[in-house]
Amino acid sequence: MSDLASLHPRAGAVLEVDLGAIVANWRLLAQIAAPAGCAAVVKANGYGLGAAPVARALAAAGCGLFFVATLDEGIALRRALGAGPEIAVLNGPLAGTAPEFIAHRLLPVLNHPGQIAEWEGAGDDHAAILQVDSGMARLGLTAAELAALAARPPSYPWRAVISHLACAETPEHPQNASQRARFAAAAALLPGVPASLAASSGIFLGAPYHFDIVRPGAALYGVNPIPGRSNPLRQVVRLYGKILQVRQIDRGEPVGYGAAHVMQAPGRVATVGVGYADGWPRALGHRGCGHLAGTRVPLIGRVSMDLVTFDVSAADPGAAHPGALIELLGPHYGVDAAAADAGTIGYEILSALGARYHRVYRAPPDQ
Amino acid sequence: MSDLASLHPRAGAVLEVDLGAIVANWRLLAQIAAPAGCAAVVKANGYGLGAAPVARALAAAGCGLFFVATLDEGIALRRALGAGPEIAVLNGPLAGTAPEFIAHRLLPVLNHPGQIAEWEGAGDDHAAILQVDSGMARLGLTAAELAALAARPPSYPWRAVISHLACAETPEHPQNASQRARFAAAAALLPGVPASLAASSGIFLGAPYHFDIVRPGAALYGVNPIPGRSNPLRQVVRLYGKILQVRQIDRGEPVGYGAAHVMQAPGRVATVGVGYADGWPRALGHRGCGHLAGTRVPLIGRVSMDLVTFDVSAADPGAAHPGALIELLGPHYGVDAAAADAGTIGYEILSALGARYHRVYRAPPDQ
Repeated sequence: MSDLASLHPRAGAVLEVDLGAIVANWRLLAQIAAPAGCAAVVKANGYGLGAAPVARALAAAGCGLFFVATLDEGIALRRALGAGPEIAVLNGPLAGTAPEFIAHRLLPVLNHPGQIAEWEGAGDDHAAILQVDSGMARLGLTAAELAALAARPPSYPWRAVISHLACAETPEHPQNASQRARFAAAAALLPGVPASLAASSGIFLGAPYHFDIVRPGAALYGVNPIPGRSNPLRQVVRLYGKILQVRQIDRGEPVGYGAAHVMQAPGRVATVGVGYADGWPRALGHRGCGHLAGTRVPLIGRVSMDLVTFDVSAADPGAAHPGALIELLGPHYGVDAAAADAGTIGYEILSALGARYHRVYRAPPDQ
Repeated sequence: MSDLASLHPRAGAVLEVDLGAIVANWRLLAQIAAPAGCAAVVKANGYGLGAAPVARALAAAGCGLFFVATLDEGIALRRALGAGPEIAVLNGPLAGTAPEFIAHRLLPVLNHPGQIAEWEGAGDDHAAILQVDSGMARLGLTAAELAALAARPPSYPWRAVISHLACAETPEHPQNASQRARFAAAAALLPGVPASLAASSGIFLGAPYHFDIVRPGAALYGVNPIPGRSNPLRQVVRLYGKILQVRQIDRGEPVGYGAAHVMQAPGRVATVGVGYADGWPRALGHRGCGHLAGTRVPLIGRVSMDLVTFDVSAADPGAAHPGALIELLGPHYGVDAAAADAGTIGYEILSALGARYHRVYRAPPDQ
């Protein structure tokens, strides 16, 4: 960790991404879902971790199908991956964009009759993915629209038919079974077309939810897909914030904006170069913590745009100095723990990880 | 607005930044603060709006001093602005980085004795800015450290002495006057050195807080610096999310993750290509709103990573179609309103504005 600080003298914070852990997580999920195939969701810039390095590592490990959200993301990922793997774009083609999908060999996910017509109008018989809505009311055909489509199939082949579960992280929720039943009925209208319903949490609902392809996202990046139970995935990210200044503060002195924290005893406060502009949520003010040389140090006061303060009184005084790194995410305090303290979910913590962090990618051992 | 959609066929959302409004805001703030000079804070990538275009517009309007947070930001801004304007780096030099400050002609803000020594060790007599702590306990010298420094001045000149108010948006807070008094005492130890205390809200505390230089940030970008009173600044951003799909939904049907929204009447739901990975906060789930062709449309259900849903039943049916734009930020619903609904401040809404938005910059009329 002191190496990390000296290797990144300019950084206010260093984000380590363990590509080996992502590959291990993908392999574990693929094993659980087998004989279904296992795709990988790398939308939102690989959930904030970098779509290109993540997808390259997974492609090298054997993943052949990637999902992104938008055409822009698809074009960027095609450039990063070269011609090999399939890349599907979940939000589908917006009006006038079908030629770009074809030029970059992207699989559109067609979500409504307008997109289906758009793709047919593009000319050639390029494959597409069909999304049906099974109870989320977000994207996808209704049952009636699907019936009409099945009666009059388009000229192009379906690469897959997909849907998305709304409540998969709550196994006992009755909507899981009803969505599964609706999806199975939809897939039966498209015989021979590979079917895909389960994302990260759906994989843990068991084999009836696996169909032909699963498509994990969050679980690849270490978010627990089974809240309340032990996380079977490896942690992927470590985030270290650099101490800019340490000061001794008297009892009764205020710290930070709004004078919202008042020291209850004399103590030492470290100011770290990370703030909400880095995606460290302002909702973590007065909550959350860091770890300095293994000692828990509470986050005190409000989170500023570029700075955050920790009470480091409990830490080894020799460890608390300008340039030292405080662990903000890591083995002591994972993405899910930070999310719980911020009143959100790990997905948002990851996808908000900031552009100013210096990023270090740890390659898988076999690559 | 339909022009905007057709000009950006690939965009899930379009962010308009009115550089003319930023320049007008800077001029108004400069006028209020005169005869003090007026700098501009463009840290955190210009509060999410793009440090380079913002600073170029302000430099053309006469701003000669810019503040960023980090060395990386300073280097990028120097490249964007060329040799002319002064650029100060608030977080100061980390160990070993002084030569980069000198190479890129950046003014370091020195916050503690270690940084002061670091800068002296860099050799030449390049000017620096001194920060003193006046009651925020975040960055800056203590009174005792300042007294020691005043007794043994460094070899280099001070370009300015600065501090930061913790409670400026609450004019009646007693800490304002105490910070002002502490800062005035500190500045008196450095006769002839320009003094700067007030940021956006501090400018509105009146002339005693202006000293020689004010340095607004948030107010430049339209955030109200005087909460509870009428905002004297012009709005700067408009954000439009594109409708991907519109569906008719029956009463009792669930929408989105967790089936957390249930339609209380039959209605139409529009799914828009913006989510929390774009910085549209997940805390806006079940709150907040958009505007479609001037009609308020409530945000329903949870915010997804890449998608958000609106109940568009009240809008003109002809206006609610795939490709149409819903105004997410603009005259009907500004940055401060979105922040209030999300339980945060406008600063966080701005600095989280996403990398996937297609950005349009409106030039000032006179540039």
